[in-house]
Amino acid sequence: MSEYIEFNPTPEQLAYTFGPNPPVAKVRPGDVLKIRTEDCFGGVVRGFGDLPSQVCRFPYLNPVTGPFFVEGAEPGDTLALHFVSITPARDWAVSSTFPHFGALTSTSHTATLQPPLEERVWVYDIDLAAGVARYSARNSDFTVDLPLDPMHGTVGVAPGAFEARMTITPDAHGGNMDTPELRAGVTAYFGVNVEGALFAVGDGHARQGQGEVSGVAVEAAMETVLVVDLIKGVGTPWPRLESDTHLMATGSARPLEDAFRISQHDLVTWVSELTGLDLLDSLQLVSQAGEAPVGNVCDTNYTMVAKVAKAYLGRAGAYDGVHHRLKALGAAYR
Amino acid sequence: MSEYIEFNPTPEQLAYTFGPNPPVAKVRPGDVLKIRTEDCFGGVVRGFGDLPSQVCRFPYLNPVTGPFFVEGAEPGDTLALHFVSITPARDWAVSSTFPHFGALTSTSHTATLQPPLEERVWVYDIDLAAGVARYSARNSDFTVDLPLDPMHGTVGVAPGAFEARMTITPDAHGGNMDTPELRAGVTAYFGVNVEGALFAVGDGHARQGQGEVSGVAVEAAMETVLVVDLIKGVGTPWPRLESDTHLMATGSARPLEDAFRISQHDLVTWVSELTGLDLLDSLQLVSQAGEAPVGNVCDTNYTMVAKVAKAYLGRAGAYDGVHHRLKALGAAYR
Amino acid sequence: MSEYIEFNPTPEQLAYTFGPNPPVAKVRPGDVLKIRTEDCFGGVVRGFGDLPSQVCRFPYLNPVTGPFFVEGAEPGDTLALHFVSITPARDWAVSSTFPHFGALTSTSHTATLQPPLEERVWVYDIDLAAGVARYSARNSDFTVDLPLDPMHGTVGVAPGAFEARMTITPDAHGGNMDTPELRAGVTAYFGVNVEGALFAVGDGHARQGQGEVSGVAVEAAMETVLVVDLIKGVGTPWPRLESDTHLMATGSARPLEDAFRISQHDLVTWVSELTGLDLLDSLQLVSQAGEAPVGNVCDTNYTMVAKVAKAYLGRAGAYDGVHHRLKALGAAYR
Amino acid sequence: MSEYIEFNPTPEQLAYTFGPNPPVAKVRPGDVLKIRTEDCFGGVVRGFGDLPSQVCRFPYLNPVTGPFFVEGAEPGDTLALHFVSITPARDWAVSSTFPHFGALTSTSHTATLQPPLEERVWVYDIDLAAGVARYSARNSDFTVDLPLDPMHGTVGVAPGAFEARMTITPDAHGGNMDTPELRAGVTAYFGVNVEGALFAVGDGHARQGQGEVSGVAVEAAMETVLVVDLIKGVGTPWPRLESDTHLMATGSARPLEDAFRISQHDLVTWVSELTGLDLLDSLQLVSQAGEAPVGNVCDTNYTMVAKVAKAYLGRAGAYDGVHHRLKALGAAYR
Repeated sequence: MSEYIEFNPTPEQLAYTFGPNPPVAKVRPGDVLKIRTEDCFGGVVRGFGDLPSQVCRFPYLNPVTGPFFVEGAEPGDTLALHFVSITPARDWAVSSTFPHFGALTSTSHTATLQPPLEERVWVYDIDLAAGVARYSARNSDFTVDLPLDPMHGTVGVAPGAFEARMTITPDAHGGNMDTPELRAGVTAYFGVNVEGALFAVGDGHARQGQGEVSGVAVEAAMETVLVVDLIKGVGTPWPRLESDTHLMATGSARPLEDAFRISQHDLVTWVSELTGLDLLDSLQLVSQAGEAPVGNVCDTNYTMVAKVAKAYLGRAGAYDGVHHRLKALGAAYR
Repeated sequence: MSEYIEFNPTPEQLAYTFGPNPPVAKVRPGDVLKIRTEDCFGGVVRGFGDLPSQVCRFPYLNPVTGPFFVEGAEPGDTLALHFVSITPARDWAVSSTFPHFGALTSTSHTATLQPPLEERVWVYDIDLAAGVARYSARNSDFTVDLPLDPMHGTVGVAPGAFEARMTITPDAHGGNMDTPELRAGVTAYFGVNVEGALFAVGDGHARQGQGEVSGVAVEAAMETVLVVDLIKGVGTPWPRLESDTHLMATGSARPLEDAFRISQHDLVTWVSELTGLDLLDSLQLVSQAGEAPVGNVCDTNYTMVAKVAKAYLGRAGAYDGVHHRLKALGAAYR
Repeated sequence: MSEYIEFNPTPEQLAYTFGPNPPVAKVRPGDVLKIRTEDCFGGVVRGFGDLPSQVCRFPYLNPVTGPFFVEGAEPGDTLALHFVSITPARDWAVSSTFPHFGALTSTSHTATLQPPLEERVWVYDIDLAAGVARYSARNSDFTVDLPLDPMHGTVGVAPGAFEARMTITPDAHGGNMDTPELRAGVTAYFGVNVEGALFAVGDGHARQGQGEVSGVAVEAAMETVLVVDLIKGVGTPWPRLESDTHLMATGSARPLEDAFRISQHDLVTWVSELTGLDLLDSLQLVSQAGEAPVGNVCDTNYTMVAKVAKAYLGRAGAYDGVHHRLKALGAAYR
Repeated sequence: MSEYIEFNPTPEQLAYTFGPNPPVAKVRPGDVLKIRTEDCFGGVVRGFGDLPSQVCRFPYLNPVTGPFFVEGAEPGDTLALHFVSITPARDWAVSSTFPHFGALTSTSHTATLQPPLEERVWVYDIDLAAGVARYSARNSDFTVDLPLDPMHGTVGVAPGAFEARMTITPDAHGGNMDTPELRAGVTAYFGVNVEGALFAVGDGHARQGQGEVSGVAVEAAMETVLVVDLIKGVGTPWPRLESDTHLMATGSARPLEDAFRISQHDLVTWVSELTGLDLLDSLQLVSQAGEAPVGNVCDTNYTMVAKVAKAYLGRAGAYDGVHHRLKALGAAYR
């Protein structure tokens, strides 16, 4: 009894935290959801003169669409979100530097006495048909077409312990993980912390390099279709991702090696459970077969992904095959 | 006037530091070198009973073949080493855990009061014809064939400032970077710090996951062919790599975000020089187009690689095209 | 028109986050407040058999007394809390290890595959008259009297950006800073983020070493007297402390060097404002004259304090002398 | 049979690494040594116009006096150096900023795209009789007298594993720890790695704040008297210090929490050995009674000190009382 639900938030409906916010809609496991998300600047950075520090007003940054209340979701369950499609909603996208934000500048926390880098905006042409985002330098006539690879930087559920967290922060509840691995075709898993899970989605990127070095990706409003499901009575310690070919665990923390440790620890534990390997045998396999794609090295927590090909794991299937079920369910909406 | 030189060190000729050690041979720019390297255990770990902490004796770990004195090399130059082939020299390879070493254990520096993980050895069958290394679990009958992807964990030159550094340490002089990107077909660039450069090579891995999570890869003795060249009067701040398709910069430091920053800073600067983009335009391009493959998160310094496709950089060619010249030169020796 | 208000919370009134919680009472600038705070375990760890992981239930840890609504407090103001006295409320206190928590164990974030250290409880005898807390070893008959030096580990206001944060987390809003510098005689300053400031106090320690290495101090319920004041229109970026002799700035972050940087950056900036020294002259003075007492190296963020003697700063007075006014006001209640 | 030896190096005799350098002199356990050390700039920064980056030439920075060959010293022993006196040798000292060096600037490793802070020199008047160093601002007429507290930033032995390390680097062999705790009256202990120990001393500071925030202390040439001793067959993992009242362990690493962990781990272990407490009882005692004075947060490794009062440890005496013997021996030379 899958329903198809569309939701396009008004500006007033956008949320700026993951937490116990009033839900914008209720959904049920199996429902297909088509949502619109605004870009991280709330859509107000549109040209070279729109410096984010001037046209955006803290904390009204990185809005998310949601939260959605999932009927039946309780603490201890796992929420599965299968991303059927993530499509840039406009024919342009933007990027920028932002004062004292990013990996190659001192920041509010890696605090130095140096002034910030120049604040600068770049505008990208998005050509869906050609599948490219066009980079144009600001101080020369250099241009290059980069392949579109749309993703959501921010996806998560309400955190536990009565917390509400800025959408810009990634942590065990998800949030602003900013990993290019969260693209269409992937199922994301989150441990449920509060009744209804209260998930939300935002911060679309037409594409993003690993690490999001400048602090800002190719920011784009998105039209996104996803399928919702619930795995009852099964917990998930940190957000996980599954594609047709790979299993992925995430970790978000500082310093970066802790994000790496969390993600690898979860992957080693998960592979052990799926394959019956003991922890050291699983560690050995992941050590030789695994990948470690960097998410972001600029947000309030950094995000690392630990990734291994399913082909190396025998017949093991994660979460009882929900990824393939949701993919099939979503196929009609692609 | 390229010469072909073979060098197979005796055990006494192996080196354990990068520094002002007496060279094992002199080579000239353009020479092709075929060397044998021993594995990180000096070849003494051969079975389940050969626990590294018992059969190896500190500091006689991670031996390198070299150093080689490059005629004409002076501080301020760049040494180019093109890896024509890297071939496992035996039909087996080994891996292990090692007490208080690795990313998922406390260590000598991330010091805790916990006892070490169990020390355990794994033996891999190497099948060159099939191109696989066979993983076999120790505590179950699980096996899986992983693709061979041979690489050298340790390549570098003598450091500056009169230093001698353990081969296990990666830093600005190269050393134990443990990145899978250092495979056959790649040219590695090192800034020269002392007369003759004094480069050395070791620590072959039949394959390695990103991050080398357990601290130990699929360790293998290697037969390696490389071409040596010298770029006079051009410095290189941190080791760089070039493949047919990508430019890569490395950084080795702790915490991991500093390794990331160093590598990205060097790539942004390098791309700026090659393309004429100013630093912020280069930062923007690298941020959206770049990759950040993890090297190691277990050694005395961690290593990150910043990587960008040449296809995105216009007609820019690094180091005046030396990669393609050396590739052509080495083709006859593949 | 200073009022004297006593507040002793019922267990149901205790709070577990800093955030927009309903206030337990309203106070006005100049009011003197006598409160009771429960220990970090909610008072349920009383003997060797009361292992915290068994008798405490997450997230009901580290309760705070509050929040208190300060009339007139608005974002952009600074809240001043002068601690007149902090007195252990019982003749015993407790400490413990806690699984995978503390500086000398792997943790949830510095994740390893090692099992946790043994969980163990220590009980201290508190002798107010003698001014000592008696340490007794568990596995030998070693005992020693350590001087009482009562402090509050957790003091803060509601954070901005619509956040609610676990009381165990220190950040720009204060929280679980766990610095021994927050003792009686000190005035603490917090930037106000929400109307009413909503401050709360908890986590008394009969004493604590620098760094809180084991993760748990000599935990004690407290009777605390404090004076509340408001500095209108003056912001404070991170919590600051003032004693009769010293100015202190705090930073809470990971890695530890970022906590250090934040605290030193704020102290250098503050000293510059107070003395008229330019930033580099202030940096130079703080570099040679400053101290850097460690707060905690175990919580979700680590805390460092940057400290300088007022005697080195000429006639400069912080916040227009409010520390001395509040001290005088509180004298009657000591 | 204690001998009294004076050594005042010529500029050519200064060393720039800890390693297997030819010794400048041989000494025997029990000998009293009076040495002269040059400041970290080699004495060439003498006025506002002497910008270090212009008048100093890398790697000729941070010279040390030595190495001294200690007769009978073998790997596995502990070298004890008791500092009888450390006296500024001139009536002036200097400090500075240095481009991309220090805690409140991006650096070569915490690499950003920001330009360096202004390079600026400060000159201090040293008044031995009054016991003060006079700070004078450069951009105002602010001055203040700071108490002299002379120390050596750099003391160490040759490292193991055939290494030679720049004197600017602190590690397990000692080196540039830059802790104000290394002052007159203190005995420093170092594990011996090579025959003769090969210790050296340099980098005097007329005083230094905790953390050496700007990267440079009040740099001064020194006249230093020390007594040398050897504890045969007893190892020391990381440098330790002992004063009349305290035991101290050091750790030097990045990130800063690892320096903290190393130092606390060693102190907990050491206290356990001295008192017979088991490791967890020792951890508990150190956690409540210990201090953690910051050394440096600017060098190639950061240094932390873990410190506990002897008064809390019962009758335990470290290294069989050598501190008190050396103090008595040195008393005649004060």
